[in-house]
Amino acid sequence: MNYKKLGKILGKIMILEGILMLAPLVVSFIYKESIIQTLAFAIPIAALVLIGFLLQIPKPKREAFYQKEGFALVALVWIVMTLFGAIPFVINGDIPNYIDACFEMMSGFTTTGSSVISDITKVSHSTLFWRSFSHWIGGMGILVFVLIFIPESNEGSSMHLLRAESPGPQVGKIVSKMKVTTRILYLIYLGMTVLEVIILMFDKPIAGYENEKFFFSLLTTFGCAGTGGFGFIPGSMQLFHPFSQYVMSIFLILFGCNFTLYYLLLIGKVKDVLKSEEFRSYFLIIGTAVALVFISLATKMSAVYSTEASFRHSLFQVASLMTTAGYTTTDYDVWPQLAMTALILVMFIGAMAGSTSGGIKVSRIVIASKGTYINVRKLINPRYVPKAKFEGKTLEEKTINEVFAFITLYFFLFLIALLLLSFDPINGQTMTVVSDLHPEGREVTHGFFSNFSAVLTCISNVGPAFEAVGPYASFAEYSGFSKIVLTLTMLLGRLEILPVLILFNPKTWKKI
Amino acid sequence: MNYKKLGKILGKIMILEGILMLAPLVVSFIYKESIIQTLAFAIPIAALVLIGFLLQIPKPKREAFYQKEGFALVALVWIVMTLFGAIPFVINGDIPNYIDACFEMMSGFTTTGSSVISDITKVSHSTLFWRSFSHWIGGMGILVFVLIFIPESNEGSSMHLLRAESPGPQVGKIVSKMKVTTRILYLIYLGMTVLEVIILMFDKPIAGYENEKFFFSLLTTFGCAGTGGFGFIPGSMQLFHPFSQYVMSIFLILFGCNFTLYYLLLIGKVKDVLKSEEFRSYFLIIGTAVALVFISLATKMSAVYSTEASFRHSLFQVASLMTTAGYTTTDYDVWPQLAMTALILVMFIGAMAGSTSGGIKVSRIVIASKGTYINVRKLINPRYVPKAKFEGKTLEEKTINEVFAFITLYFFLFLIALLLLSFDPINGQTMTVVSDLHPEGREVTHGFFSNFSAVLTCISNVGPAFEAVGPYASFAEYSGFSKIVLTLTMLLGRLEILPVLILFNPKTWKKI
Repeated sequence: MNYKKLGKILGKIMILEGILMLAPLVVSFIYKESIIQTLAFAIPIAALVLIGFLLQIPKPKREAFYQKEGFALVALVWIVMTLFGAIPFVINGDIPNYIDACFEMMSGFTTTGSSVISDITKVSHSTLFWRSFSHWIGGMGILVFVLIFIPESNEGSSMHLLRAESPGPQVGKIVSKMKVTTRILYLIYLGMTVLEVIILMFDKPIAGYENEKFFFSLLTTFGCAGTGGFGFIPGSMQLFHPFSQYVMSIFLILFGCNFTLYYLLLIGKVKDVLKSEEFRSYFLIIGTAVALVFISLATKMSAVYSTEASFRHSLFQVASLMTTAGYTTTDYDVWPQLAMTALILVMFIGAMAGSTSGGIKVSRIVIASKGTYINVRKLINPRYVPKAKFEGKTLEEKTINEVFAFITLYFFLFLIALLLLSFDPINGQTMTVVSDLHPEGREVTHGFFSNFSAVLTCISNVGPAFEAVGPYASFAEYSGFSKIVLTLTMLLGRLEILPVLILFNPKTWKKI
Repeated sequence: MNYKKLGKILGKIMILEGILMLAPLVVSFIYKESIIQTLAFAIPIAALVLIGFLLQIPKPKREAFYQKEGFALVALVWIVMTLFGAIPFVINGDIPNYIDACFEMMSGFTTTGSSVISDITKVSHSTLFWRSFSHWIGGMGILVFVLIFIPESNEGSSMHLLRAESPGPQVGKIVSKMKVTTRILYLIYLGMTVLEVIILMFDKPIAGYENEKFFFSLLTTFGCAGTGGFGFIPGSMQLFHPFSQYVMSIFLILFGCNFTLYYLLLIGKVKDVLKSEEFRSYFLIIGTAVALVFISLATKMSAVYSTEASFRHSLFQVASLMTTAGYTTTDYDVWPQLAMTALILVMFIGAMAGSTSGGIKVSRIVIASKGTYINVRKLINPRYVPKAKFEGKTLEEKTINEVFAFITLYFFLFLIALLLLSFDPINGQTMTVVSDLHPEGREVTHGFFSNFSAVLTCISNVGPAFEAVGPYASFAEYSGFSKIVLTLTMLLGRLEILPVLILFNPKTWKKI
């Protein structure tokens, strides 16, 4: 392990986090918040910058770093960023408990959007901004961002970082130079973000929040772009007008696409985009899921929703949960079983690789299906030579096997987390949930489905779950132990498991 | 596809099924049942034998058959046996609906034990016998049984059949000749069966069933040996005395062991048995699960159970659900979350490969864990050469990849079945369940957990599930479509997926 080099990059990222935290500091000034609320950001900024600079002093003997170092670094960076990013919440009192604050911050950076805040109306603007901004930062990957600015980082090392942080089974460069690739991707990300903010500004303001239009458009877009989904007013997106809800649905689906496809669009290769198998499968799954949810709502909940509302909620919830954002427009926890199961399935699947979303990813589902077909064909004819292709390239056995290994691990960790949550004293307790469909409140018991969906929503970086941790409830009631488990689960999901396992493997830390 | 050869073997098995059905016919005579009840077995016997003989007439040009034919044949045989085996239930009126009867029969042969019978007290002795006997037949595998008697079957072809029908990632011969191997295994199976019947006979009879002692011991043992678990009096094993419950627990654990280990024991290689990694992991998992369930019951349900009862129920339910038998002694559906989650995990895992149990199998869990460790090590050091071993032999990459592929497929099919069940109109309905802990009856809603656990119990061939399909409920309320889905799920679980996929692949049926 090249400790000095590791420290150097970690330090750079800490300085960067300090710089990024200037944004909520400014928000704190704009909204004339109290001195404590301003200090809440100023103190960690000072700490980050100071430690960041100290870490620059030792001179590493070796500039390049190996794959394992890249993987461990990525996992470490995300943990350190969370530990520092959570400090403001504790100081300004919005989330007094540090474990809770770390849960919230990890949920922000990993673009999960699960929250421990039970009354969002009591939270300061600077906190709301920092939470949502962390989605935007985490969506594209913090290290990828750094790559644009670190001059000495060489190509090979950058690739290790990108591999570790980018969602999906394969990472390709779209142009020959890594740094140029990441710059292009970030520009697309930025451009789409600006576009969504502008379009959302065309909607009427929300009653009772007339002065917050720009602020809300910005936060909404951060959550869409990063597919994060922290809410900032009661009921997530429930109070937003249908116009905004439709706009969000479309942008969520767009942010769930592989960003490389936008680059192909920009250089005029429209045909290549339309031929992409992952792209087609992605829209096929969205279409099927929306249809199933809509049928389910139209047949069983026509007394509650108009046809338009049924369609809008179906589109919005599928887009939001499949891209693993997690914004909600209604209490889907009381939806019929078919709608619920369809939502759970898309939460497992997630959106496209190379997007900001979580979950298993559509490309892995496609590759695993092809792999299974090959296995069956091989049993039918042992001399069968597979010539499977994916996205026009030969699908190598190694890739297929990695995908199978990943999915297996995904479910194993899922079950382990499920077991750990079952120790929580909250299990079996009953609580009251107030929602749009049940303003009088309805009783919910914290049972198996609560834990199951909590693990799912965290490992897939979605946000809300079902039952006692449904769209109108929060994760506040879980014990500290459970919150730590779920915080780690989010990290495992966001970094796609292996970097975290490498970080915690003693072999990684051998001096070489 | 070698149709004539396929027909020949299928015919032989149909004749065999006819012969096996003489047993319930005899039971019908012994209990002086009505003529309809006797004819219920006589008619399908006649049909099986007649069709079986007709299928012997065409002379195949090729005696040997290929792997794909072996796999397809195995899947086909299980379906045909179910379709004929279900006929008696319809004729004697115990299960008037043919889809229901097929569900019950498939549940029997696949040693699942899920039942559609809501009032077991109204069922005839011959039906009870045939249901439990089917566990015993299905446990070791019907084709493996046939191998002992088919003289012309050559070694290679037999191996294909055995591979397709035997649970677990690898099939080894314990002696050089396949036929001798299967004979030894069947003798061990028979010996242990006889032993359990004898031991169970030492218990006091159950109040109200004084004359049924031998009959019950026999049926209980069939269910233990095949790890099936059909109940035959209300409350499954609830009314049995602690002595029998302990004896069953032990035998269940023994029948969950790889039968090859018994052969090693017989020839005095005790050390080899104790060194077996799967054997150690199996007992480690059982021990951990029993401890977790016991802690959970002792802390939260001490008002209901004595310490002895807590321990007994913990041991029994873990043994029963992990070996995927599915007998029950109490209403575990109201157990605390920790106990429930532990049970769900062991239902996923299952017992050892080469046993009569279902589930993913302990050996696959061990191999997948080793595979993951290798993957992490390789990322840490790309030049790392894995020298993993399993059961003393080198663990080949091919085996690891097959295991990953299998587990992925297991969860994929799981989720597909879950989606299909969500169409059922039963979802959301409420019913009353009467159990030992709630003799007054308690309300249960058919929700997500019902479907989730129903799919789990069927794909892992366990039997009872949770919530609306818990230990004191039945599968009767599911729609015909859902029952067909679950019937296929059981078959996929028992044959470990691939043979069924091969059967339904058109490429299999090309004439060659």
